Amino acid sequence: MEGLRYSVADKLAVAELLDELGVDYIEGGWPGAIPSDTEFFARAADELNFKHAKLVAFGMTRRAASTAADDPGFQALLDSRAPVLCLVAKSDMRHVEQALRTTPEENLAMIADSVRTGREHDRQVFIDCEHFFDGFRNDPAYATLVVKTALDAGAEAVVLCDTNGGSIPSDITAAVTDLRRRLAADLPPERIRLGMHAQNDTGCAVANTIAAVEAGAMHVQGTANGYGERPGNANLFTVIAILETKLGRKVLPEGGLEKLTRVSHAIAEIANMAPDEHAPYTGHAAFAHKAGIHASAIKADPALYNHVDPVVVGNDMRILVTEMAGRASVELKGREIGIDLSGDKDALDRITKRVKELESRGWSFEAADASFELLVRDEVEGGLPRPFTLDTYRVIVDHDPNGATVAEATVRVDIHGEHGEADEHRISTAQGNGPVNALDAALRSALAARHPRLAELTLSDFKVRILAGSKGTDAVTRVLISMSDGEAEWTTVGVAPNLIEASWNALADGLAYGLNRR
Amino acid sequence: MEGLRYSVADKLAVAELLDELGVDYIEGGWPGAIPSDTEFFARAADELNFKHAKLVAFGMTRRAASTAADDPGFQALLDSRAPVLCLVAKSDMRHVEQALRTTPEENLAMIADSVRTGREHDRQVFIDCEHFFDGFRNDPAYATLVVKTALDAGAEAVVLCDTNGGSIPSDITAAVTDLRRRLAADLPPERIRLGMHAQNDTGCAVANTIAAVEAGAMHVQGTANGYGERPGNANLFTVIAILETKLGRKVLPEGGLEKLTRVSHAIAEIANMAPDEHAPYTGHAAFAHKAGIHASAIKADPALYNHVDPVVVGNDMRILVTEMAGRASVELKGREIGIDLSGDKDALDRITKRVKELESRGWSFEAADASFELLVRDEVEGGLPRPFTLDTYRVIVDHDPNGATVAEATVRVDIHGEHGEADEHRISTAQGNGPVNALDAALRSALAARHPRLAELTLSDFKVRILAGSKGTDAVTRVLISMSDGEAEWTTVGVAPNLIEASWNALADGLAYGLNRR
Repeated sequence: MEGLRYSVADKLAVAELLDELGVDYIEGGWPGAIPSDTEFFARAADELNFKHAKLVAFGMTRRAASTAADDPGFQALLDSRAPVLCLVAKSDMRHVEQALRTTPEENLAMIADSVRTGREHDRQVFIDCEHFFDGFRNDPAYATLVVKTALDAGAEAVVLCDTNGGSIPSDITAAVTDLRRRLAADLPPERIRLGMHAQNDTGCAVANTIAAVEAGAMHVQGTANGYGERPGNANLFTVIAILETKLGRKVLPEGGLEKLTRVSHAIAEIANMAPDEHAPYTGHAAFAHKAGIHASAIKADPALYNHVDPVVVGNDMRILVTEMAGRASVELKGREIGIDLSGDKDALDRITKRVKELESRGWSFEAADASFELLVRDEVEGGLPRPFTLDTYRVIVDHDPNGATVAEATVRVDIHGEHGEADEHRISTAQGNGPVNALDAALRSALAARHPRLAELTLSDFKVRILAGSKGTDAVTRVLISMSDGEAEWTTVGVAPNLIEASWNALADGLAYGLNRR
Repeated sequence: MEGLRYSVADKLAVAELLDELGVDYIEGGWPGAIPSDTEFFARAADELNFKHAKLVAFGMTRRAASTAADDPGFQALLDSRAPVLCLVAKSDMRHVEQALRTTPEENLAMIADSVRTGREHDRQVFIDCEHFFDGFRNDPAYATLVVKTALDAGAEAVVLCDTNGGSIPSDITAAVTDLRRRLAADLPPERIRLGMHAQNDTGCAVANTIAAVEAGAMHVQGTANGYGERPGNANLFTVIAILETKLGRKVLPEGGLEKLTRVSHAIAEIANMAPDEHAPYTGHAAFAHKAGIHASAIKADPALYNHVDPVVVGNDMRILVTEMAGRASVELKGREIGIDLSGDKDALDRITKRVKELESRGWSFEAADASFELLVRDEVEGGLPRPFTLDTYRVIVDHDPNGATVAEATVRVDIHGEHGEADEHRISTAQGNGPVNALDAALRSALAARHPRLAELTLSDFKVRILAGSKGTDAVTRVLISMSDGEAEWTTVGVAPNLIEASWNALADGLAYGLNRR
């Protein structure tokens, strides 16, 4: 996938997570062909202790006009010591002729020889039929013969790959059904072991995979979070969730499914990819409902609005507090952050009123849970002790005649003691690669001596949105800042006509929230 | 969608783009229920001139125990002057009882009355059957009766909504097929007009929509780029591409499909959302092939590796590792702004190279036509005379002890005469309600005496996005500025680590472009 680079250590960590989830096979790369993959398998042999999964080496069938035993590429797969091989083979006549430049018969021999040789070395062998669906459409007899040859030679399963990704589910259903019918002429049902490998070029990879299972496939391939070339591979986590929650097919060991969300997010972290907020089942927003007119209904019966109970995949339901928010949704959200507002109607009223008023001025709490929590605690518990209050700040940005741009900020704050009294005044100046960066550095510098814990807090995200004012009024700027202390992450919001002021608001709230976490 | 907030101006711009693409209906919100939507429809009546699409007002069927004529909510839909209404109705018995708290019979009356009243006012009326598939599974007879009632009352089509998004394609195929069979007992085929509205909770929204069409639906609903609650709605652009390229169903006017990629990206910019690189058909990576072993094969016969020709959706094939891609789109875009690059291969190469290099540093020309035009004219015509060049600037933002925030900017520029020579140096200081506003005011003030026309140029939009750097590098800021001179509007882009610097770049280019328009 463009932009995704795993180190060998990363891959070992990802493999452990997938084993923890409980998948059956984990393909770790192409030893012999890709040097870092050779290294991965070498280290895996010593360092990986799978509880459940089997490690798979990917490769090709032996080369034409040779034997598997003499093929150095094939030998490298055996040298990897992986107990399972997954060999890509041609099943499309046109690729046999144009890409491999060999005969249809030799292609079959390459497949049979490779599978048998792998079996002789006590390996399980999967055959991945590249471009299967295009090939089957072009010449179904030959494509069927390829599958049969592989099964006869002892393949664990033959995987039908939609390599160009151009199929839609009805294509898959028709092809798999037709293929099974043709194979049934020669093979008993229990020997027709087919798998599916979908690419997402039509946005149907998950659906194509499910269609294949419904048509009789007993093996599916996919990737974590759908990572892969072009629009990606089938998202294995979505496929697993559908198999278990919609088709009643238990594919993970007991207790596996509820690890899905955590494993999905952990792998995204290792991949240095932002987790997809909107991923089905596992995304942070997957079960986030806009309240408004549904709030009372959702409280009464969540099953009427959630297609599955989020808990089964380790996720949560969330209620978004929006412009249409009524007291019901504010109360629900309060419960989510651990505050019971049901017994305090006055506080609930005040909070709801403040939220609506702030939102009409451009504030948005939907993605800023920490700001919402600060607001609620202000109203309910008589205020969260603020660790500091701002006296003044000044930000200067200079573009000099050489074209260099420098930002500098000076901050004056009053630091508060444990009971809220201001007991110290500090002034600090810092530079940064931009105005907000400089402000953040100066503020931390001012607070550092009193609050050494600040060093653990990092800015993980910063979003700016200019909100056009309605006719005649000026635009305001909304800033969202996310911070982390290594354990948790929280987001705060700031709104003001001035971008720097809005950033200051979000920054100050974020640091205050972070310092107040026990 | 969490984190997505369109202003009314944004929505008007999105609507224009969708009309340009050629969709048939554009639903603009819920007038009467959501104040900013009421405003949208009011402005749309004056400002939108659709070439093809019809504007749709969303709402509910009338309330129970009332009439549509007396229902203020329904009246608000009529007041919006939208020629088409789309009314959500209950088709799941359990929701009728628990959410609406009325009888099954009254629900049918609500639907019939609302459709008829809409028709009496010369509106096309769509009925969106909420929770249809869950309801049909629970009580197929009643769900069918709801559909039949709506069709009998004159609905344009009845849209089956998978509101909780928990369906997979085989569910849809079975339900739509069964529904059609039941309806056929009373209605001739041409009156069975069904639509599909899928949510993406199982990652199958696009596939479910296609399955519905294959089972007989003649109307589909979706959103741009799949934006929507939870894991989103069906991505309308993917659906359109599949309908046209896989099912041979022409759903856009002539020339529409090749606009798909551009429209998808332009809407993402308006939404201030990062375009999905991996989106099927339209993503930047959708046809990006890792070269390596396929390179020669791909060059020889791209059709063996691309499931469709990327050109048909206005996208490009890209080869990662080598630079084969981009020229086709640069040439197309040049043509779009009135510059014919086909006769000047060297210029085309230089421009493509500059664009790719800038884009690798975070620049994006997709929504910044004026910046692209400046770049092209630089290469092709020996440069557009720049009216000014920057010497230095300084921006100061002060937050004083009373809480007031002031921004001040000082700008030094060299002003150029007609033949490009710097003939005057000016320094100006101005205040503004924010740092960029102050910079803009100071720059105009410096140029005003020489370029009185500047007074006609207004800033109409300002978007900021922080682009996360890859591991180990810093984030950069991308700023888009839109300006208008009362006749035309243009957008320029600026990218830099420092937000103020990025804003300066976009601002300076925007003013230069504006001054150079004859």
